[in-house]
Amino acid sequence: MVVVRTIDWVDDHVVLIDQTRLPREERQLQVTTVDELVDAISRLAVRGAPALGAAGALGVLLAVEESERSGWDEAALLATVERLRSARPTAVNLARGVDRVLARLQDGAAAVKNEALRVLDEDGEANRAIGESGAQLLIELTRAEHVRLYTHCNAGALATVEWGTALGVVHSLSELGRLGLVYVGETRPLLQGSRLTAWELERLGTDYRIVVDGAGPGVIARGMVDAVVVGADRVAANGDVVNKVGTFALALAAARGGVPFVVAAPESTVDAETPSGDAVTIELRSQDEVLSIGEVRIAPDGARGFNPAFDVTPAELVTAVVTEQRVIRPAAGESPA
Amino acid sequence: MVVVRTIDWVDDHVVLIDQTRLPREERQLQVTTVDELVDAISRLAVRGAPALGAAGALGVLLAVEESERSGWDEAALLATVERLRSARPTAVNLARGVDRVLARLQDGAAAVKNEALRVLDEDGEANRAIGESGAQLLIELTRAEHVRLYTHCNAGALATVEWGTALGVVHSLSELGRLGLVYVGETRPLLQGSRLTAWELERLGTDYRIVVDGAGPGVIARGMVDAVVVGADRVAANGDVVNKVGTFALALAAARGGVPFVVAAPESTVDAETPSGDAVTIELRSQDEVLSIGEVRIAPDGARGFNPAFDVTPAELVTAVVTEQRVIRPAAGESPA
Repeated sequence: MVVVRTIDWVDDHVVLIDQTRLPREERQLQVTTVDELVDAISRLAVRGAPALGAAGALGVLLAVEESERSGWDEAALLATVERLRSARPTAVNLARGVDRVLARLQDGAAAVKNEALRVLDEDGEANRAIGESGAQLLIELTRAEHVRLYTHCNAGALATVEWGTALGVVHSLSELGRLGLVYVGETRPLLQGSRLTAWELERLGTDYRIVVDGAGPGVIARGMVDAVVVGADRVAANGDVVNKVGTFALALAAARGGVPFVVAAPESTVDAETPSGDAVTIELRSQDEVLSIGEVRIAPDGARGFNPAFDVTPAELVTAVVTEQRVIRPAAGESPA
Repeated sequence: MVVVRTIDWVDDHVVLIDQTRLPREERQLQVTTVDELVDAISRLAVRGAPALGAAGALGVLLAVEESERSGWDEAALLATVERLRSARPTAVNLARGVDRVLARLQDGAAAVKNEALRVLDEDGEANRAIGESGAQLLIELTRAEHVRLYTHCNAGALATVEWGTALGVVHSLSELGRLGLVYVGETRPLLQGSRLTAWELERLGTDYRIVVDGAGPGVIARGMVDAVVVGADRVAANGDVVNKVGTFALALAAARGGVPFVVAAPESTVDAETPSGDAVTIELRSQDEVLSIGEVRIAPDGARGFNPAFDVTPAELVTAVVTEQRVIRPAAGESPA
């Protein structure tokens, strides 16, 4: 399999896989302005915490190049970057990617470009380290010859630059010959599980089953998996984990069933500024995502939806957070920050 | 609102709402033969345990009237009734409805008709009693001026003859002026929440919001509802509740959040022959329901799904089971049978 980066810099612009079209169509978007990038982020053509970090980094580079072409206007540049920075409020990585690269602005365009490209390279390295560490941890925790897993949403290559966090763990277990059957929650409303994770697992040749999100806790309770592994959009200082809506239910079922609940995420997801999950603003998205599936309206006329994109899993339900640097055990009282 | 029965007897035939067409189209089927009724049951035009009991009862009446018109042939009549009886082999209420009315055959056509219509009337009465008892219980348990609820799947008028079990409770609270906002889980894979429950609540003029199933536990954890109320497909002797897949997650979140989890179901749902949820065979349905939504394929080619229709909520998570006769409190150690 050729590794195609989810998001990359080619010549003078951003290239990204349009994830809204997967799995039916593998199409790359050529993004030449920050406004186009903000649009791509808003409609989830690019998504996933680490990939958003890369998008933030490359977005600043785009803004600098735009500004250079149109006669440098630093106030306009900063306003543009601020729109980018706040395109998705719950994802700390987006703002981090922006801030890291923006900090090099006084060193000139070349320094900005170097820093932005370094964000991408480091993401790939961090994910491989997370995958290897997570795989070892799961082998230790479960003592299973072939570790059967449940995962949710997409914390795969498509959520990062090129390897994946939770699916990086799956990938590493597979390379070690220690992977069992993988259950994938479809992840309504936007179906990142059945569209994106399934697409990645299909390419990896993994044996997997897609289930509706409501089925996950029952699958865990019935002893059908050895562990749950998910990514994170933000890890609070106390170990609370903010991740795709539906994650909390899996953690509840895992805790009840004595099944390890493992979060695979880069250090950049750990936010020392956020004391606990209560402090996080949960992004509310359009009710249309709930009332329709794709173009097809499900609900009756007049119906209203409520569409939080994330939920909070309390630290005491989180067996471990695996980063590229360490393994933190919130359920055992360890705090990430 | 005019009460339209989900299934009824009009003049000389069965009339039922075609639920496969809701909420887009409100169409009544005029069913004049048992074969047409068997077809309607098979393709889920009529569904829900109590409604299937009524269908079984009225189907025997149809068979008797058909037989009378074509020169009485009791062997043919019994063969016809047997096809009806086995139209959905797992639905015990269907066979119970058939058997109850068939037992009056030797008393003549008028006795058959009386018994069949009595099945319908009793269903309505039982549901109204459940609704009133459940509403009083929720007012006591929550002490809320307006009780905010979460419900799942469709345990409404459409699953019964005319009133509903869990939605009967909603209806009764509404009549008392004590109903707050109702959250409805969409209930993948077949979307009974966003199609059927939303349609019913729309007609009731209730303020409600549809959420994806994964959002339910977060809604409960955030203190956005005062109680969870659902129906049941079976209540085991120990108080374990078998209900639509996704129910267990709501019970886990409710227990953690200190929110009452109430099951509204007729006595006929309590099965003394089933010692616990472990003894129940969970129906596995076609993977196509997971891999597609309606006619639209979601998952990539080659993907496989796993599609259990139900899950088991352990008795200790069930605050109360409300029937037309009593309130049982499994979490407090009370057993229904």
